[in-house]
Amino acid sequence: VTQLPPALCEDEVVAAIAAIAGEPRNRRILLGIGDDAAVWQPSRSHRSVVTTDMLVEDVHFARDLMAPADAGWRAMSANVSDLAAMGARPLLATVAFGFSAASAIADVCEFYCGMAQAALEAGLTIAGGDLSRAPVTTIAIAAIGEVRPSDLKTRGGGRPGDVLAVTGELGASRAGLFAAQQSGLLTGALRDKALAAFRRPHARWREGRFLAASRNVAAMMDCSDGLSTDLDRLCRVSGTGAVIESVPVASEAAHAAQALGEEADRFALAGGEEFELLVAIRPRAFAHLAARFLAQFGRPLLRVGRLREEPGVEYCGAPLERGGWDHFAPAWKRN
Amino acid sequence: VTQLPPALCEDEVVAAIAAIAGEPRNRRILLGIGDDAAVWQPSRSHRSVVTTDMLVEDVHFARDLMAPADAGWRAMSANVSDLAAMGARPLLATVAFGFSAASAIADVCEFYCGMAQAALEAGLTIAGGDLSRAPVTTIAIAAIGEVRPSDLKTRGGGRPGDVLAVTGELGASRAGLFAAQQSGLLTGALRDKALAAFRRPHARWREGRFLAASRNVAAMMDCSDGLSTDLDRLCRVSGTGAVIESVPVASEAAHAAQALGEEADRFALAGGEEFELLVAIRPRAFAHLAARFLAQFGRPLLRVGRLREEPGVEYCGAPLERGGWDHFAPAWKRN
Repeated sequence: VTQLPPALCEDEVVAAIAAIAGEPRNRRILLGIGDDAAVWQPSRSHRSVVTTDMLVEDVHFARDLMAPADAGWRAMSANVSDLAAMGARPLLATVAFGFSAASAIADVCEFYCGMAQAALEAGLTIAGGDLSRAPVTTIAIAAIGEVRPSDLKTRGGGRPGDVLAVTGELGASRAGLFAAQQSGLLTGALRDKALAAFRRPHARWREGRFLAASRNVAAMMDCSDGLSTDLDRLCRVSGTGAVIESVPVASEAAHAAQALGEEADRFALAGGEEFELLVAIRPRAFAHLAARFLAQFGRPLLRVGRLREEPGVEYCGAPLERGGWDHFAPAWKRN
Repeated sequence: VTQLPPALCEDEVVAAIAAIAGEPRNRRILLGIGDDAAVWQPSRSHRSVVTTDMLVEDVHFARDLMAPADAGWRAMSANVSDLAAMGARPLLATVAFGFSAASAIADVCEFYCGMAQAALEAGLTIAGGDLSRAPVTTIAIAAIGEVRPSDLKTRGGGRPGDVLAVTGELGASRAGLFAAQQSGLLTGALRDKALAAFRRPHARWREGRFLAASRNVAAMMDCSDGLSTDLDRLCRVSGTGAVIESVPVASEAAHAAQALGEEADRFALAGGEEFELLVAIRPRAFAHLAARFLAQFGRPLLRVGRLREEPGVEYCGAPLERGGWDHFAPAWKRN
């Protein structure tokens, strides 16, 4: 989830920055600013992928809601998720790590342990970094992966008629945020599941590689800013609109929404900081691919809608606003 | 220049982090934590190199001494310099950019313009990034380059007897820092040169590639923390000691030292935030390589000393302490 000052609109800043950066000057850089990761060609038959993600204390996490190791896990997982969204295999990462004068080495190591655990889970090596003082804990990771040229997926390949699907139910991480803030909101196993989804979300890199290997997967990205926001992005790059037919809501999200007096589907659409992948699939191939996905992962590939020619994202017969995640409020204060 | 909280020793933190990160799990990762950059093998005949460097407002730069565009230039150049130190050609970079709620888009763009100028100078493409709120301006760049397998240089190849040389005179950036703080310290062209060295230091990537192409260059790194500190690092990794025979002092550094009542050579040894490369060269090859360097760049390759078996760095018959850059004080407050 990108966090910007209130006075600035994210799209405006990115457009200004892209104009300053200019077009790639080297024709071996195949994809620059604008997707989940950048792509270049180290040799004719190879593609490398790089992404970066910054996590700032009191912007992306608060210590009273999340342990340092959890914050480290999330910082690394956010990068792995971006590689997954390109269909890439995680390979290595660098960690630029700023911490305050009040930090002790045990504290620093706890953040690092979370990063190392997430790296291990993804088969990725932490291969370098930089240390700095900073006013608050600041972790900026760059992660590098590899993908076969034929497997590379971007946000831009969708066509009208493509089936939209996600790799898992939505809203669990958001439920976990509220459960961490309001101790009575959820109880028992639901609470545990929600907190785990919030504190230790799993990047879907295995699923990403599986889906990338199918030539019928036309576009892919992760849902780290919530389906309502990220689907709109996919549509804009693909030059399509979309209809959301159904929203797969995690049970912990449904319970949290009920306790908060919100509609479960809207609650889940406005999720974020979860790493399910959103894919556009050629319609004739969906059933077969979903069956193979189920056999491979023991979980269904969940249909959420379809791409259409008409611009905009529609849900329940009305235009869907980019929702939920308020880019101008700290993530841990959102409600 | 690494900036750490007073309670923490850099070597201690790096050692702890390296232990947590563990050994590279993939044998195609050829070099992990500990050098100027990490190295991996995208294919048998190619080597890719990645480095990261973080720049934090009021830690690495202060707005009253340096314009945002200069800070952006330095942030990018520090990364390019690390690639240069491996003998790599700069290819692309990602920029994780945090800025405060008080920032205006023009301000953000000014930082970015400096980064883009330094990237252009190095032939590097800014290919992606992340935007975030942060308490102060925070720029974490990861830069990727490429190097022929036979050209790759590390800190670890030096042998006793090797000639030590640097690609340019030292101390100019430090003189510029003082000149920016004390307006009467230097005047005229000397002041302009010193301020330029401080605000727009040039990464020596052309020189790095030239030196890397010689099999007689045994070890290479940049002097971004000052010769006294960085030579000690090279020696430790190479398993040698060193004798410094002479220190090439930039004229603006000599004048600044005089005005400050310091010895010029000590002032320059304790420099930092400048990007001259330090190389260890097989002794019989030095004269020929230095002549070729002069012909290529119009500047001499400057001999500073030699590696020896006995550990430690010696200067003027006495052990040289790692000097000058106090890792525990803000860079812009040092004196």
